[in-house]
Amino acid sequence: SSASKYRLLHGAEAIGLKKEYKDGSIREFCFTDRYNFTNQEDDDFLLESEKHQIIKVELDSLRALDEKYVPGHQSIKLYPGKSIFRRLASNELITDFFPLHDRPALHKLRWAWYKTIDLNLRQPLDRVRAYFGDTIGIYFAFLNFYTIALVPLVMLGLMHWGLGLRTDIGGKVDDNWVLSVIHVLWSAAFLEMWKRKSTEYSYKWGTLGTKVWEEPRTGFRGPLGLNEVTQRQEPVYPSWKRNLRILLISCPVVVLCVTLAVCLMFYYFSWEIYLTEMYRGETDLLSSLMKNAPSITYSVLILLGNSLYRKLAEFLTDQENHRLESDFQKNLITKILVFDFANNFLALFYIAFIYDDMPMLRQTLRNLFLVHMIVSQALESLLPYWTFRYRSSLYRATLKSNRKAELTMHEQTCLELQRDTYWGTFDDYLELWLQFGYVVLFSCVYPPAAIFALINNVIEMKSDAFKMCNVYRRPFVYQTNGIGTWKVAFEALSYLAVVSNLALIFHTSRFIEGIYKVFPDASTINIILAFVAVEHILLGVRWLISYAVPVVPHWVKVETQRMKYFSLQALKRQ
Amino acid sequence: SSASKYRLLHGAEAIGLKKEYKDGSIREFCFTDRYNFTNQEDDDFLLESEKHQIIKVELDSLRALDEKYVPGHQSIKLYPGKSIFRRLASNELITDFFPLHDRPALHKLRWAWYKTIDLNLRQPLDRVRAYFGDTIGIYFAFLNFYTIALVPLVMLGLMHWGLGLRTDIGGKVDDNWVLSVIHVLWSAAFLEMWKRKSTEYSYKWGTLGTKVWEEPRTGFRGPLGLNEVTQRQEPVYPSWKRNLRILLISCPVVVLCVTLAVCLMFYYFSWEIYLTEMYRGETDLLSSLMKNAPSITYSVLILLGNSLYRKLAEFLTDQENHRLESDFQKNLITKILVFDFANNFLALFYIAFIYDDMPMLRQTLRNLFLVHMIVSQALESLLPYWTFRYRSSLYRATLKSNRKAELTMHEQTCLELQRDTYWGTFDDYLELWLQFGYVVLFSCVYPPAAIFALINNVIEMKSDAFKMCNVYRRPFVYQTNGIGTWKVAFEALSYLAVVSNLALIFHTSRFIEGIYKVFPDASTINIILAFVAVEHILLGVRWLISYAVPVVPHWVKVETQRMKYFSLQALKRQ
Repeated sequence: SSASKYRLLHGAEAIGLKKEYKDGSIREFCFTDRYNFTNQEDDDFLLESEKHQIIKVELDSLRALDEKYVPGHQSIKLYPGKSIFRRLASNELITDFFPLHDRPALHKLRWAWYKTIDLNLRQPLDRVRAYFGDTIGIYFAFLNFYTIALVPLVMLGLMHWGLGLRTDIGGKVDDNWVLSVIHVLWSAAFLEMWKRKSTEYSYKWGTLGTKVWEEPRTGFRGPLGLNEVTQRQEPVYPSWKRNLRILLISCPVVVLCVTLAVCLMFYYFSWEIYLTEMYRGETDLLSSLMKNAPSITYSVLILLGNSLYRKLAEFLTDQENHRLESDFQKNLITKILVFDFANNFLALFYIAFIYDDMPMLRQTLRNLFLVHMIVSQALESLLPYWTFRYRSSLYRATLKSNRKAELTMHEQTCLELQRDTYWGTFDDYLELWLQFGYVVLFSCVYPPAAIFALINNVIEMKSDAFKMCNVYRRPFVYQTNGIGTWKVAFEALSYLAVVSNLALIFHTSRFIEGIYKVFPDASTINIILAFVAVEHILLGVRWLISYAVPVVPHWVKVETQRMKYFSLQALKRQ
Repeated sequence: SSASKYRLLHGAEAIGLKKEYKDGSIREFCFTDRYNFTNQEDDDFLLESEKHQIIKVELDSLRALDEKYVPGHQSIKLYPGKSIFRRLASNELITDFFPLHDRPALHKLRWAWYKTIDLNLRQPLDRVRAYFGDTIGIYFAFLNFYTIALVPLVMLGLMHWGLGLRTDIGGKVDDNWVLSVIHVLWSAAFLEMWKRKSTEYSYKWGTLGTKVWEEPRTGFRGPLGLNEVTQRQEPVYPSWKRNLRILLISCPVVVLCVTLAVCLMFYYFSWEIYLTEMYRGETDLLSSLMKNAPSITYSVLILLGNSLYRKLAEFLTDQENHRLESDFQKNLITKILVFDFANNFLALFYIAFIYDDMPMLRQTLRNLFLVHMIVSQALESLLPYWTFRYRSSLYRATLKSNRKAELTMHEQTCLELQRDTYWGTFDDYLELWLQFGYVVLFSCVYPPAAIFALINNVIEMKSDAFKMCNVYRRPFVYQTNGIGTWKVAFEALSYLAVVSNLALIFHTSRFIEGIYKVFPDASTINIILAFVAVEHILLGVRWLISYAVPVVPHWVKVETQRMKYFSLQALKRQ
């Protein structure tokens, strides 16, 4: 943050930063026109995160002018036009490189973010984004939006619980299909509203419609060749090689892993059946523990398998040698989602549609869901909290030994060096994705899922905030204009929810009985075909909703058009 | 075309026209930087269509400076800031307004376009676009691409025909499912490749990523209010009123019309069955004519119904009072597609899945398809040709009576005034859409459909070209960057093709028999459920294909990135 103000403003123009103009619109910053931007004379005109971004780009773009050796290191040669910084980093002359926390700003942020309790579940997203940048800002925005969206579902779940208790005494009411329909509609509405909300954030944060310029990944390697865009010498790697590698190595390995996971699932089932038979009818503590043992063991194995597979997926994707970080992420996400889907949900589908055992489905769903939640909360909240406690004692000891109230920058650096690096929002999104799956895919079987999800997310919001401030090193700032591949992943689950919920309704024998009562002459085949037709129509309607709801809200559209119109007018006046 | 060259170049900058730069890339034209654009000194640097566009925008943007009356017309008042041109047009001081044909250019275009026969089926698309503009250029590009894409299908159809004749003598080979799978894959591949091709055209024609600025439609009306974008006084119409009108008037009327069409269909069926029963077993000419009578009558009624409904749909959409032409078109297309789908395909679905009568399906499909093709070719080719013949005799008479070789501009205007106005590409796309439906929805039942479609389209390419040059007035030029809503409409058919083809395979009893031979113990319900599962997986795969194939081809991506990179570099040097 010691770069001079003008330097930073020039940098802001170079990376095409967008800021608020005097008329309230958001437009690309221009140095010569700087007096027309709101608050440009303030010291905090450029946000913390924006300054970091500019400095990072400037550092990365420091390039050697001619071929020479690094002073003092005769073995390390710099080539003209190549990044000096990367060269030093790859030769481990620079061993570690991260931004320091701004302690006063962080202190203020802590109070606004997680040290107060807001009953509206609202978070100071603009301030989070101002400090940590877009990627982290949009994650917390999504978490916040999703958590608030769960509230109506929870109310429904509570109502159903109340009603369910009452109807169980009198007679059985088959309201499963109502629950399913509501969950499916809810998932559609939630994603459509998020789509619009996300555009609003992109607009406010100045990333709407900007295609982010990416440097190659640090891990990218290949023989020197001509970059088609910049016409510079740099490592190139033909995409046919990459595609071949994906087809011949990555795909088979992923399929193998999924097969192994499915085999594990079958072992689990045979064990489960064996134990259920063994303890049939017994209700004491030991036997109910034994009956639940397989599903709990299986849940733990799933968690272990997931983390092992994660390492493998990272290795495979790294071997695919993607040039851009975004491509790397996309391929990694796809690999992990395929496996995690199989690992978490296939067993449930199997129980539901092949075994046709609804009580067992409910029990497995509950165990999987709760174990998943408890273990990840423990790993993500308690463990970091203990680390934090240990480190703050170190911090206080350092202060005490030096008899002063503030740390020097060197001391701060040493302390923050001990912190873990934050590897991005991947795990956080994945957790939400799996949770979303548990909530919507089998909604009619286990309505309390939404209640537990809400409780979990309220804790998650606070614990993630705590971790960002106290446990991790300050992460680098990246631009983004939405949640990217995750949007597609959530939407896929939402479409699948239509299919699985309808199939579940169909499978509950009470529903078919009901139809026979209304149409005594209908053959089973015709009922099935009619059902499939209805399901297809619902899928079509689901698609129609996402087609009809515009991505860009009205006010954002008006604002962007207004800006374009005025710049056209200005051009004409010239 | 009498506007001075500099004026036109300034206009080109004002509307943000994109032209080829000296380094081969396409970028926004800038007057001060004009010497760096390829061929800028040539007279035809700006294409005919681009000049027209610039002049149209300039004319539309002539606005009154202060409140006064039109000289000589005390009743017509001009308001400051309002378009003079529109005011004159709405008061019928200007009764008709259209660009004249450029006779020498048109003459050259004719020879390149339809007077030569190219066995590669290729059309001079760049030249068509240079003369008629983007919307018409992209329509012919699509027609051309679709026609060429039909060739492999036709080869397959011919092969099947040959094989079918042979296998009918020996034994029955159930190759329906092979045909279906190929058609479904073909439709996916065709649309994905078009998606990329369309991006290439957009890039070459300089409309990639440009959001076209639209003035309100001429028919738009409402009380004066403040435009949110321009802050000017102009007619406004709240969108809630429009949405209410769509929901309460348009939707019910459309549903009513569809219901009427379905009733007509049922009448047709009862008539068909009655006549089939009556002439059962008779094979003479009269009875085979009588047997085909209902389906031919029905086809003609469908055509009539379509054109009546069209008028209604236009009226309804006009009443919805859309502000922009593109919104008007989108709503009109949706209305017409829903009705035309019901009108053209519902009967076929009914025959296939409720009646379960494959020979009848084949016969109805053939009749509907051929009648549709023949009638529309007659309306679209023969009728215009006769009109043209009549008009050219007039033209020659004018020349003769004046004893000269060329027409004066006044005479040309009078002659072209008699021509019909070209109302846009709507009908042409609709015809292709219906044809595409006939080809892919029931492909295994009637493989020759592709053959007839190919023949039709080859004629269509030439006859449409003929009409554009000789029958219609020269149309106004509009920018576009793709086929818009039609892409979605074609994709919807392609998804539906997966469902309908699989359902057809399933319905042919031979397929089920085959499964029973392989799995003798399988229950019918399980076979159905397995089949539905397979169908869902195929739908997922179809979606995956369109998700995985990138919209922007590699070379276009490199070009755009290169341009961005160099402008960033230039900015840095400044």
